[in-house]
Amino acid sequence: MRLNSLALVLTFGLASQGCLATTESAQSAAKSNTIPKNIIMVVADGMGPAYTTAYRNFVDDPSTDHIEKVVFDEMLVGNAATNPAKVSGYVTDSAASATALATGVKSYNGAIGVDVNKKPLPTVLHKAKEKGMKTGLAVTSQINHATPASYMVANESRHNYDAIANSFFDDRIGDKFLADVMLGGGTKHFVRKDRDVRKEFADHGYAIATSYEELANLPKDKPILGLFAPLGLLPALDDTNRERLSFLTQHAVERLENPNGFFLLVEASQVDWAGHGNDIASAMAEMHDLATTMEYLKAYVEKHPDTLVVLTADHSTGGLSIGANGQYAWNPEFISNMKASVGKIAKQLAQQQSPLLYLEEQLGFTLSAEDKKVLEKLVAEKDVDTVTSQIKAFLDNKTNTGWTTSGHTGDDVEVFAFGAGYQGFTGQIDNTDIAKKIFHLLDN
Amino acid sequence: MRLNSLALVLTFGLASQGCLATTESAQSAAKSNTIPKNIIMVVADGMGPAYTTAYRNFVDDPSTDHIEKVVFDEMLVGNAATNPAKVSGYVTDSAASATALATGVKSYNGAIGVDVNKKPLPTVLHKAKEKGMKTGLAVTSQINHATPASYMVANESRHNYDAIANSFFDDRIGDKFLADVMLGGGTKHFVRKDRDVRKEFADHGYAIATSYEELANLPKDKPILGLFAPLGLLPALDDTNRERLSFLTQHAVERLENPNGFFLLVEASQVDWAGHGNDIASAMAEMHDLATTMEYLKAYVEKHPDTLVVLTADHSTGGLSIGANGQYAWNPEFISNMKASVGKIAKQLAQQQSPLLYLEEQLGFTLSAEDKKVLEKLVAEKDVDTVTSQIKAFLDNKTNTGWTTSGHTGDDVEVFAFGAGYQGFTGQIDNTDIAKKIFHLLDN
Repeated sequence: MRLNSLALVLTFGLASQGCLATTESAQSAAKSNTIPKNIIMVVADGMGPAYTTAYRNFVDDPSTDHIEKVVFDEMLVGNAATNPAKVSGYVTDSAASATALATGVKSYNGAIGVDVNKKPLPTVLHKAKEKGMKTGLAVTSQINHATPASYMVANESRHNYDAIANSFFDDRIGDKFLADVMLGGGTKHFVRKDRDVRKEFADHGYAIATSYEELANLPKDKPILGLFAPLGLLPALDDTNRERLSFLTQHAVERLENPNGFFLLVEASQVDWAGHGNDIASAMAEMHDLATTMEYLKAYVEKHPDTLVVLTADHSTGGLSIGANGQYAWNPEFISNMKASVGKIAKQLAQQQSPLLYLEEQLGFTLSAEDKKVLEKLVAEKDVDTVTSQIKAFLDNKTNTGWTTSGHTGDDVEVFAFGAGYQGFTGQIDNTDIAKKIFHLLDN
Repeated sequence: MRLNSLALVLTFGLASQGCLATTESAQSAAKSNTIPKNIIMVVADGMGPAYTTAYRNFVDDPSTDHIEKVVFDEMLVGNAATNPAKVSGYVTDSAASATALATGVKSYNGAIGVDVNKKPLPTVLHKAKEKGMKTGLAVTSQINHATPASYMVANESRHNYDAIANSFFDDRIGDKFLADVMLGGGTKHFVRKDRDVRKEFADHGYAIATSYEELANLPKDKPILGLFAPLGLLPALDDTNRERLSFLTQHAVERLENPNGFFLLVEASQVDWAGHGNDIASAMAEMHDLATTMEYLKAYVEKHPDTLVVLTADHSTGGLSIGANGQYAWNPEFISNMKASVGKIAKQLAQQQSPLLYLEEQLGFTLSAEDKKVLEKLVAEKDVDTVTSQIKAFLDNKTNTGWTTSGHTGDDVEVFAFGAGYQGFTGQIDNTDIAKKIFHLLDN
């Protein structure tokens, strides 16, 4: 059980929203459980509300008469608005929204930890480090991508990837490095001809991991930089470990645990990439990795009730809808047994002696005569991007999935929270409120 | 455990959002305030999550540096799943979802107050009437449309409109009529050659209103049937009273107030119709009428804290997204000054001597040279449906609005609740939970 008594909760509801009064009976009990020792912020990049519903349907057991609940259902507490500073209109990019989530300040699209005047802002990660907590990142993008970068450093543009990587090493809180644990992709930016930032970390006492196996086998008493891909990690569907975010999160937590507490940013970065690609199969595979991560964190908080976990999206991507084209149906069974991502399938299609057999095997369902007629046309196509688009369109048609854009949308996103102090995140809030509330918790 | 089982916890959520109550007063209020005397269930048909965000942007004051909060923001408590019984897949129609909201039982698409075996089900409205409460409906569709019908009667198909209208009169709870107040459209089904159901109500003591003026002037001590249109009311943008749902709701409440309490179903029926039509201007106008209704109900609950208000959507319609086509923008200023609905504008276009001037005046913004080039093509077009579609496409393009379907989608919808007993509706719930929780409140 998440909370020890009803009295506790009563206190939280008031205290957390900025109301100072608390009931006397609840006050003392609340102290132990409203201020978390550890804070784990999970950002599911691009995960609009349709993604969580879709995931519930995706893993539904069709043999029962009801739709089984998923881990997100136990944790939902409200919604957050995601709009950037007005100079960028009503639809945010991942830099402005991550800056809002990390600093509590709205900024322009493209901003990494800076305000509309390009002035660097303190982040919740900085504040945690100042307090003597350990800090870390576990993401499926390159670790200097917009979301993790905004928690770590300040830069006027998300596109200055090399400069951002340099800042990961060069910036300090007092005399300390920003983060004790950094797990994700990014060797292209961290190991360059002009500068080997990874080596600099190694020279300053960081353990270095270049594969999941290495990470699993390294001792846990040193700070660590694990870079597992040139840029983002492989898509979940193609990775050797389809639950790699869960794996990285678990290793980050184990390395961060210490008497002073920790702040960990986890990002399911590639939900967004699947959304940009209008790729429903990858979207659900990334959601599955996220769900596995949340199951791990739920179990962790059960054992460590002094830990707060907050999950939200920075925005919605793709304009995903469950059902499309006037039909009242969604058929996730056509993406539930994929052997690889659509991108990988498309790449390998040209090399197949029996392309339709290959497609049937990779997509994981028996193709109808009509399906074969549609897919046969692809076999002659040489352009991999065209093949990729057409397989995605084929799966959208089979599943009856809708998309409105290759970019982001301005729709509010869901907020999930559990553990110590979760009560402050309920109802309709703004993305900046999430940072403000975490700052407030860190102030205590 | 589920967050929403922490019932009392969230007692203070409402108070805390505006810090309206001090702790002690909130605490004693909580005890006397968990069982409502009056219950007002508001269904915003088709209002997926994107609609409430869009509405916030739509009414935003562009001259400030932030987006102003709207009435919905104070009331959000969670989300609800909307899926019908599995026999109908993952995407519901308004009949199955209204049956779920009214009875607590999932059924097939098309079902009005019956289960998957077509067995009639008791509804929360029936239960309220059994308890001696007054009951009522205030809707912008015909009053025998799927949503209100499912609270009132049982029929194997939503399409049996005349039979459903008959049941409104023929069915009884004990010796009482089902509803004391029925306000909306529907003379086509209630005043027929083969049967004049409205007259039968009049003969049994019901006051009859045929216009908003009549409704306003009729005495408030009699039951009432007000039918203001053959089918649905005019779209908000075309009605003499653009806030007609708010007006009907206020009149319903005033007529239902009594020492035994009341149950009122309010439906913003035409949010859904705007969604089906992929008509962003009408969607926002219907949302504005709903927002005005919620402002009225908020003020009512402040004066009558023994009243519970629950607002949800039965499903999402249209696959609306804020932003589309890869552009990070949404521009509601192009629909903020409409003089009429797109449908009405299209109908009247052919009769205009200066069609472009007329369009400019009706759309309410200065047309650019490029706009005029696009719209000029419409002037020669004689088919009103084509003109309607093309003006909508023009506005989608100007506002950068996305749609995926002319039908419904399976995405979860938001739940809003305030007043006595609202705490039971927090977190992630199922649409059937809403009826179950209302039944439970009525049992006390």
